[in-house]
Amino acid sequence: MSLGLSDETDITIKGLEIVKKASQVYLEAYTSILLVDQAKLESFYGRPIHLATRETVESNSDAILSAASTADVAFLVVGDPFGATTHTDLVLRARARSVPVRAVPNASILSAVGACGLQLYNFGQTVSMVFFADGWRPASFYDRLRENAGLGLHTLVLLDIKVREQSLENMARGRLVYEPPRFMSVGTCARQMLEVEEDTGAGVCAKERLAIGAARVGGPTEMFVAGTLEELCGADEALGPPLHSLVLLGRRTHELEHDTKVHDYPLPQCSLRQS
Amino acid sequence: MSLGLSDETDITIKGLEIVKKASQVYLEAYTSILLVDQAKLESFYGRPIHLATRETVESNSDAILSAASTADVAFLVVGDPFGATTHTDLVLRARARSVPVRAVPNASILSAVGACGLQLYNFGQTVSMVFFADGWRPASFYDRLRENAGLGLHTLVLLDIKVREQSLENMARGRLVYEPPRFMSVGTCARQMLEVEEDTGAGVCAKERLAIGAARVGGPTEMFVAGTLEELCGADEALGPPLHSLVLLGRRTHELEHDTKVHDYPLPQCSLRQS
Repeated sequence: MSLGLSDETDITIKGLEIVKKASQVYLEAYTSILLVDQAKLESFYGRPIHLATRETVESNSDAILSAASTADVAFLVVGDPFGATTHTDLVLRARARSVPVRAVPNASILSAVGACGLQLYNFGQTVSMVFFADGWRPASFYDRLRENAGLGLHTLVLLDIKVREQSLENMARGRLVYEPPRFMSVGTCARQMLEVEEDTGAGVCAKERLAIGAARVGGPTEMFVAGTLEELCGADEALGPPLHSLVLLGRRTHELEHDTKVHDYPLPQCSLRQS
Repeated sequence: MSLGLSDETDITIKGLEIVKKASQVYLEAYTSILLVDQAKLESFYGRPIHLATRETVESNSDAILSAASTADVAFLVVGDPFGATTHTDLVLRARARSVPVRAVPNASILSAVGACGLQLYNFGQTVSMVFFADGWRPASFYDRLRENAGLGLHTLVLLDIKVREQSLENMARGRLVYEPPRFMSVGTCARQMLEVEEDTGAGVCAKERLAIGAARVGGPTEMFVAGTLEELCGADEALGPPLHSLVLLGRRTHELEHDTKVHDYPLPQCSLRQS
């Protein structure tokens, strides 16, 4: 079940009824986060919440599924209930054990991003951007961006979050010590795009390409900043705290798109008319 | 503000608070519908609702915007608040009058369709299918499907609904008499796709192409039927009442997709392994 995108009041009436009745409530806490903390959720729902880490869901789902075979278990997800392969996998394992599953949809960044003023019909496939690390710069996102650009379509780029990650040293020593959570910003994403552009040179992520940086979409402090990729490298301060996403603009625009929020964005030199 | 996809309990807590406090509540009733009637919504919200027809929003939005310049007005939409150009246009006109606008997102078919088991990352641009009429068979959807197919991507096809349409005769005579509402079914959509395929012959909508018919996505009677386009021409009885959507499968599939709900669908001859 999805909780929506922003705070404790984004759950649906139907979802809240299910949470209140469920024998156990899990909150998936590694593919996305709400912008409020667990205590606030627990107090609002009137229920204790188990945080489900990646290990819980990938390697230890038996506990969840066993509980679900005799009573209702709520598995809460921020954003899309089917946005991550691990969620689909959990549904499949439930089905293999004949545990009935019901999905309760709610807001997802895939449609809420429409608030930036671009028409959702003009978006191509969605892309993920992971944090580059020394010697590891997965660049397959570039091919997806190129495919969308070839059709003139916008691309929503979803940005990595790292929670409960261990340093290599702690992992090697078997110490369950976790690094502070990291949320990729629009600036980091834009810099990684320019980095891969330098290697590739096909122009898909050239520094003058237009994009929109988005922050806290669906929440009361939702913010959009439009500009070139080069400009967006320095937009983190204007955008503020996580979560961020980025939209790379395509050439195929609806006339309305020339006239939407983009003109109100903090970077006055931006324009939707792409060269 | 979005109401979700299915019934009165799909509104969020945040949304319900806004509806209860608003001075006026409009329900947009021409791009999509909830699966419950207006009286049920009014009783659940404890508020009277004005139905907003296409004419209200396109030609008579001044009434809405004037009210909104002095008090809070809630404009309720089923599915995506920014799914229709008329909604974006309303936001632009509000902004031109310096009326503050806030969007409250909720479930949208664009992400809820993930319940069919296909990975949302493998969807390309979304396409609309309108009812063909004598002499009018807009076929531009075919080009969009071909673009997605060229990249191996799935396509979500959103199906036409006709509410408050006048017959040509009633329109000519100026009689405000409306035809019964019509909701395009998966069977009609599949037949129209095969019809355009006959003219085009590029194979994008060949009768053996695999697709998934979806009905009442996000609701308690949600239903998916997989099969070839030819098979889906006869799937309306299995799918049941509106609203329907269709997903045309692409070749780029995640291994998990071979193992999802599709195997439980009523048409046993279906398979996700595309020729």
